[in-house]
Amino acid sequence: MDRRNFAAALLVATSALVLPAYAQQASTRGRVVMQVSDNDPAKWNLALNNAKNVQTDLGAANVDIEIVAYGPGIGMLKADSVVGNRVDEAGKAGVKIVACENTMRGQKLTQADMLSGIGYVPAGVVTLMQRQQQGWAYIRP
Amino acid sequence: MDRRNFAAALLVATSALVLPAYAQQASTRGRVVMQVSDNDPAKWNLALNNAKNVQTDLGAANVDIEIVAYGPGIGMLKADSVVGNRVDEAGKAGVKIVACENTMRGQKLTQADMLSGIGYVPAGVVTLMQRQQQGWAYIRP
Amino acid sequence: MDRRNFAAALLVATSALVLPAYAQQASTRGRVVMQVSDNDPAKWNLALNNAKNVQTDLGAANVDIEIVAYGPGIGMLKADSVVGNRVDEAGKAGVKIVACENTMRGQKLTQADMLSGIGYVPAGVVTLMQRQQQGWAYIRP
Repeated sequence: MDRRNFAAALLVATSALVLPAYAQQASTRGRVVMQVSDNDPAKWNLALNNAKNVQTDLGAANVDIEIVAYGPGIGMLKADSVVGNRVDEAGKAGVKIVACENTMRGQKLTQADMLSGIGYVPAGVVTLMQRQQQGWAYIRP
Repeated sequence: MDRRNFAAALLVATSALVLPAYAQQASTRGRVVMQVSDNDPAKWNLALNNAKNVQTDLGAANVDIEIVAYGPGIGMLKADSVVGNRVDEAGKAGVKIVACENTMRGQKLTQADMLSGIGYVPAGVVTLMQRQQQGWAYIRP
Repeated sequence: MDRRNFAAALLVATSALVLPAYAQQASTRGRVVMQVSDNDPAKWNLALNNAKNVQTDLGAANVDIEIVAYGPGIGMLKADSVVGNRVDEAGKAGVKIVACENTMRGQKLTQADMLSGIGYVPAGVVTLMQRQQQGWAYIRP
């Protein structure tokens, strides 16, 4: 092929290279999963403060935040939680908040015992793990 | 070159592109490193519970789990550990469990003072760091 | 094109492929961000020990370490901190140590209240999050 055809071939090859690079760039949207595994309302408040600060700093529309409560941290999401109001507010502000069904089973809790408006995952620790492998940052307040 | 040759060249270039993409996909196999750095048997049990839940949920054959005990958490792996039996079971179930030799040196511990069947790393914190940079998720129970 | 030109074209395409791979390799330089969010001098010392061990094991020149103090951990970096001397030493050894301005505002602290030689970030939790999304490992001692 002549020089022009050669250049054209390279351009095509290069655009194929650039595409995945662009996709990777796009995936650096702010995404953070937060772990709540302590039976400690101070930690629950810290997690909610952290979520709020991330939204304030980056803009709520620009970031995905997921709070996962499991093990000794499950009390954060029980109907009688001392931070129930704040969990509700965070949910309305776009923070996804989920309880671990493994933990709930172990503590004989059903969805009727939990705050309304939250979500559920089969195993909190697996969610924390998979989010990271999908490129999410991890914060343990 | 003619159209057919051009297509062949692109195919080769494309397969070269696809290969690394496939390798990357393959590397999203479940891999998680867990940190134990508290002198707190409740945390030791939580780490072991977490490992078990990950294996149950994803299938033990589909996930690599490594527990790294260091600093104030080293007691989890001493011969007189209150969770010795569970550490043994986890090891037999395919969880890799390692003690930090830096910490052991600081506490004048030798391998004779530790549970049998565990592994050793020169610096626990470096292992935790490198695993993450190799694509492993990080959990601090 | 003839065989030689075809080979040349592939070589160029391949080098374009290898370049990003090399860049990715280069980005696996040791990089770790450490979170200090407990009001607990034992944790402050543990973070400083961890940083030192990473530098000793990998060579201070081969690794970037950043310690982020925020929330209840901000006391680590106040002028009257019990680990003030060690913070100073770590900074001189090349560890970057930063305080969260969100937390400082909440506690009515100004830079005059803090150790000299430290750095500042607008929101500690956002720094912890962004570093991870840039490929840094995360350690919460």
